[in-house]
Amino acid sequence: MTVLEGKIAELKEQLLTMAAVVEEMLGNSIKALVTGNRALAEQVVSYDEPRVNRLETANEDAAINLMALYQPEASNLRTITMVIKINNDLERLGDHAVNIAQSALFLVGKPLVKPLVDLPHMAELAIAMLKDSLDSFTEYNADLAQSVCTRDNAVDELNRRIKAELMEYMAKDSSTIERAMKLMMISLNLERVADLATNISEDVIYIVTGRDIKHHLCSPDA
Amino acid sequence: MTVLEGKIAELKEQLLTMAAVVEEMLGNSIKALVTGNRALAEQVVSYDEPRVNRLETANEDAAINLMALYQPEASNLRTITMVIKINNDLERLGDHAVNIAQSALFLVGKPLVKPLVDLPHMAELAIAMLKDSLDSFTEYNADLAQSVCTRDNAVDELNRRIKAELMEYMAKDSSTIERAMKLMMISLNLERVADLATNISEDVIYIVTGRDIKHHLCSPDA
Repeated sequence: MTVLEGKIAELKEQLLTMAAVVEEMLGNSIKALVTGNRALAEQVVSYDEPRVNRLETANEDAAINLMALYQPEASNLRTITMVIKINNDLERLGDHAVNIAQSALFLVGKPLVKPLVDLPHMAELAIAMLKDSLDSFTEYNADLAQSVCTRDNAVDELNRRIKAELMEYMAKDSSTIERAMKLMMISLNLERVADLATNISEDVIYIVTGRDIKHHLCSPDA
Repeated sequence: MTVLEGKIAELKEQLLTMAAVVEEMLGNSIKALVTGNRALAEQVVSYDEPRVNRLETANEDAAINLMALYQPEASNLRTITMVIKINNDLERLGDHAVNIAQSALFLVGKPLVKPLVDLPHMAELAIAMLKDSLDSFTEYNADLAQSVCTRDNAVDELNRRIKAELMEYMAKDSSTIERAMKLMMISLNLERVADLATNISEDVIYIVTGRDIKHHLCSPDA
């Protein structure tokens, strides 16, 4: 391993540390929703999010310094560029967790519009897609990336189903509208988590195989 | 101007070409909504979006080639990194335009839930923010970038107002729910356009002044 390769491995590690924080935020925001745990939701908003923001700035600076010091050739540059893009995505994913946590805070103590079954399931799928998209990047595993893309449809379908169901509740009982809207926003945020995981995977497929499926086979509903 | 500086100027030009396409897509998606122009909405979905996707791939490749060939020092690397990030953002902005156009297609020929006044106004504000955020990047103008950040609040406020108003319509007449939801999604997409413009501006402020206001003064509701 050259010095540069070692440094890139380190940079990837830092990215994965940040990813672990973001995955935990997403998990905790849904857990806070399901268990009505106000403190947990507040932790996502007030403690985790600023931490992710600091990590984002640090990682980007580290990536740029690496390029400046080691003048990598094209293939390493592509990897570092990918780190910068995923780093940016992870910050957005942290924002999605914050949005979910804020909706959870609104819903704490209020009657449930419907049993919380589909949303936790959707969260599980979306978080698994995110994990796998990052693994596909660190392992340069195009098959794993392809599987993430394929799974995006299931999340989109869940989002549609949740939306349709909540619209029925709203139509039957207008007093549910505000709460139903919050659940719908959570569903939408989870759908975007899956979309971002899909974007990451598409980039991995492009890097590994050179095939630009990005905007064809595997395009997410954004 | 060095050769590298010339190449970076060219790269920025390519980015602005893509930005112009995206701005037009956003404008046309709202115009299609307001005028019920099905063909215009379809153009955004079927013609413009694939074009933006191709431009994104081409710009990213050009940026990486530039770094590989000219081995720029840190400040130019930061500029090129910024191009890569904005390029990625523009592709997402294209997706938002597509989302709006798809909602417009759903609404063509159906009765209006409410007069379309706030949404076109919101679109105007968001598109102007996007334009200014890009200008602030090409001119390295931190004051202009700061003004974009400041204007984000007005868009957030409009989004809240539109949402509240639409929820009232839904509560009064459940037959409006589906149409009202589409309008709400359009509003949400426009809010995200403003958020992305704000993110770009925050990065510009960081580059120009070195102050990391990114996650403090100017943080968007994502």
